[in-house]
Amino acid sequence: MSFRKITVAGGGVLGCQIAMQSAYKGFDVTIWHRSYSSIGRSQPRLDRLHAIYIKELKSLRYKIGALSAEYPRGLAEDFVSLTPEKVNEMVHRAERAYKNIHMAVDLNEAMEDADLVIEAIAENEEQKIGFYRRISDVLPPKAILVTTSSTMLPRTFAEYTGRPEKFLAMNFAGEIWAKNIAEIMGHPGTDQKAYDQVAAFAADIGMEPLCLKKEHPGYILNSLLIPFLEAAKKLKEEEVADPETIDRTWKLATGAPEGPFRIMDEAGLRSE
Amino acid sequence: MSFRKITVAGGGVLGCQIAMQSAYKGFDVTIWHRSYSSIGRSQPRLDRLHAIYIKELKSLRYKIGALSAEYPRGLAEDFVSLTPEKVNEMVHRAERAYKNIHMAVDLNEAMEDADLVIEAIAENEEQKIGFYRRISDVLPPKAILVTTSSTMLPRTFAEYTGRPEKFLAMNFAGEIWAKNIAEIMGHPGTDQKAYDQVAAFAADIGMEPLCLKKEHPGYILNSLLIPFLEAAKKLKEEEVADPETIDRTWKLATGAPEGPFRIMDEAGLRSE
Repeated sequence: MSFRKITVAGGGVLGCQIAMQSAYKGFDVTIWHRSYSSIGRSQPRLDRLHAIYIKELKSLRYKIGALSAEYPRGLAEDFVSLTPEKVNEMVHRAERAYKNIHMAVDLNEAMEDADLVIEAIAENEEQKIGFYRRISDVLPPKAILVTTSSTMLPRTFAEYTGRPEKFLAMNFAGEIWAKNIAEIMGHPGTDQKAYDQVAAFAADIGMEPLCLKKEHPGYILNSLLIPFLEAAKKLKEEEVADPETIDRTWKLATGAPEGPFRIMDEAGLRSE
Repeated sequence: MSFRKITVAGGGVLGCQIAMQSAYKGFDVTIWHRSYSSIGRSQPRLDRLHAIYIKELKSLRYKIGALSAEYPRGLAEDFVSLTPEKVNEMVHRAERAYKNIHMAVDLNEAMEDADLVIEAIAENEEQKIGFYRRISDVLPPKAILVTTSSTMLPRTFAEYTGRPEKFLAMNFAGEIWAKNIAEIMGHPGTDQKAYDQVAAFAADIGMEPLCLKKEHPGYILNSLLIPFLEAAKKLKEEEVADPETIDRTWKLATGAPEGPFRIMDEAGLRSE
């Protein structure tokens, strides 16, 4: 592990997941909050994650010896070699992780000695620029900085960070302990070494790193998903077929477990 | 079964598959060929299908009693209730089907008493129009006529058929005994009764009928697949990521068994 101290800026849904997952994988994690009231809002999120981790890990016990099973791939590296002792150790690790996540409001305290700062604040360009400007003076020189923005490109923010060569993007999908992917994307000024360290960190916290060779709106996943979902919506809007038939067509023809409308429902993307 | 005699026009890859599958499911099947030399070209296709059916059916024997297994869904309605006797009966059915497919060159003979004529000739507008004009006088009044065109709309041909109300489209995907779907699509003048009979026939020959409520280029499947595959090609062409990473992203994020480049390879759609 090339990093030790990880600072997650923002205690929203994604920020809390990254914090819990990184702590579970042995990193020293601090969540920086804008205010004491935002600590109050993020604590229940961490409590809920703690309960999920413990429940998922305990349920792994019943899968020991099974030839195949669904399991949260971010939590266990390897399914077949599980033993009751290993599962117990993982439960203890999740308990320690939950207890050891530091909460900070003071920016200097939060950023002090950080190896990696993961920006997970609101998806708002001005707020992000304001944040990058604020931290550029307090970040230790060694710190690598990533944005988790899924809709904005890192080049939008690079100049405000004071360290464009150590700035890039890391995009997650959904419940990261289960759907464990991280898309890694630099901007034209990102150093390859910083990029590689972030990709290695993603693997260290149990993600499958998916490496983009260049900056691209929507990363890989949304670049595939959005035209696919739009095509499905168009078929419905033009009353060519109903959502059930469209989903059934996709599943039968491709063997996929879910059709486009089911994917939209799970992502909360369906309007009606 | 509302139909008895099925005439497939054209002994190409798809025509032979439809003929074999319909015969296997108990229909009286004739393939109409343009010439004796086209019979000579389609016979090896039927021979190959016969070998595949027998091999797939015999391999079902080893799956009896398994809790789950991959199997060709067009061949066996129901997996869990299979017995060695049922599998033997299915093998005999496939043998009978293969032997009983009639080959015809004479159009009157081929169309005589047909309940359903399935046009599976070359994907060429002029050739199809010529065919529809030729058969409009010899088709029995009761016959329903479908085109298997995947790229042209039934409205293009309706006026030439002499029976627009009994004319519609039925689109298949790949190896129909295994990937058993049939998209059913009428044009604005198609009678609902003819549509329903064709959908019921699709189910009778072991397909999952996927019913379009109106005419639409690309049916359902290609309307979803094409923008998805185009998006993947664009990511590769713009050198955002390599095909392996793109496929891995899709599989990890959606649980699908195959990514877009693998789908293109299987469909023979990749240029390099």
